[in-house]
Amino acid sequence: MKKDCNIAFIGAGNVAVNLAVALYNKGYNIVNVTSANIVSARKLSEKINAVCDANSTDYSNLKVEADIYIIAVTDTVLAEISKSLQLNNKIVLHTSGSTNMNILKNATENYGVLYPLQTFSKEELIDFKDIPVCIEANNNNTLEVLKAIAGKITNKVCLINSEQRKILHIAAVFASNFTNFMYLKSKELLELHNLDFNLLKPLIKQTAEKIENRNPEDVLTGPARRNDEIIIKSHLEYLNQNPEMHHLYQILSEQIIKFYYKS
Amino acid sequence: MKKDCNIAFIGAGNVAVNLAVALYNKGYNIVNVTSANIVSARKLSEKINAVCDANSTDYSNLKVEADIYIIAVTDTVLAEISKSLQLNNKIVLHTSGSTNMNILKNATENYGVLYPLQTFSKEELIDFKDIPVCIEANNNNTLEVLKAIAGKITNKVCLINSEQRKILHIAAVFASNFTNFMYLKSKELLELHNLDFNLLKPLIKQTAEKIENRNPEDVLTGPARRNDEIIIKSHLEYLNQNPEMHHLYQILSEQIIKFYYKS
Repeated sequence: MKKDCNIAFIGAGNVAVNLAVALYNKGYNIVNVTSANIVSARKLSEKINAVCDANSTDYSNLKVEADIYIIAVTDTVLAEISKSLQLNNKIVLHTSGSTNMNILKNATENYGVLYPLQTFSKEELIDFKDIPVCIEANNNNTLEVLKAIAGKITNKVCLINSEQRKILHIAAVFASNFTNFMYLKSKELLELHNLDFNLLKPLIKQTAEKIENRNPEDVLTGPARRNDEIIIKSHLEYLNQNPEMHHLYQILSEQIIKFYYKS
Repeated sequence: MKKDCNIAFIGAGNVAVNLAVALYNKGYNIVNVTSANIVSARKLSEKINAVCDANSTDYSNLKVEADIYIIAVTDTVLAEISKSLQLNNKIVLHTSGSTNMNILKNATENYGVLYPLQTFSKEELIDFKDIPVCIEANNNNTLEVLKAIAGKITNKVCLINSEQRKILHIAAVFASNFTNFMYLKSKELLELHNLDFNLLKPLIKQTAEKIENRNPEDVLTGPARRNDEIIIKSHLEYLNQNPEMHHLYQILSEQIIKFYYKS
């Protein structure tokens, strides 16, 4: 697959923006951006010198001419778009963690998945170099195209099937989304008492860095890890004013104690 | 307080080792290490050129001569030691996040707290430079000594009272211990399916880095953030085989949805 093949993006959200810019920076022609969100589509197309096709939300009538179509939209919308697309033998890819590749089978003869295992924001574009990009395709030719594309933006191209990708996605929800929610709850608690969330940032950084070369189970510390019933009880009493944090604290402490002392 | 004042450590665990080595490296004389764990006490005292007093677990009879005594032990043991210590007008400090300063009031006339807000391992010693060290003392003289000591090892000396320290500690449990447990659960799930935990490491790193300059509530992504009922349901169905992760996934997703859509 030549590097100057034409790519069309359907979607202009966090994943689409990061992926489209990364591909554009590696020399790919992004010819078109289609999205139900006109503002987002325009912003993205300006960044990557593409045509913005913001009115084209009737995907059965997609007039864009490209070699590869990358659908980077939320999963609910992905199901709808997949049903209406008719792209014959063009390559069609989606970027979803938990949607089976076969959702694209009625849209084309050549389809696959390009799932970058990362949390993205439009506001802070990411270098894909060390990000695992999980790929899967329904035939060898499409897989070779996918390998070439993914290999241009990252050193970590992984062949991952739909079942494995779903497991990775669930694990990522724990390792990233739920972790972020822990940061959020700790910030809420501090701010309620006029304490500065910045105080926790060296701790958060160190907690993430610790597991780069060591196992999470070997570096966990704190009251539950020590099975320190007195401190756990005093924290729970304190959190009586905050039922949601109380609930989380109790369940997580129980599971930590069970992991270290009862299994 | 002159820098060559003599410090004695009671305790030789993660906090004691990191703190004692940091103080030693800044020129303080650590004269003695006392611990119920003889092996740990010996290892630490060798590192910092101190006398190991491993038999001295009868603290009422502590024979060590020092200017400052730092008790860095688990909270249960801290309560016992505080009761038995008799150190008159010597400075006695503890390092606990959730124990009131006043637990030391029968041990001496001059007491306080030196609580470094970080997760420590003996295996990987930490530079205290950017770590918030929370201090509190029962009188001004002791507070000045504490400021001088803490200021030698960190740029972030914080005056924090016992009530605030407890809140910080609870927030730290969420931001560090529970976060680490999320890493642990995601690793467990991947390994059950022969997938490599290393795949998640760039994501974990980025999740922590994202909040260095932005609010956690502004950068959270994932199915619950999008209120994507179909994916949440499919993940929960998948986790039916794993009741603990199922329980966590459900509660955390509910709380995230409530935070973004119902408050």
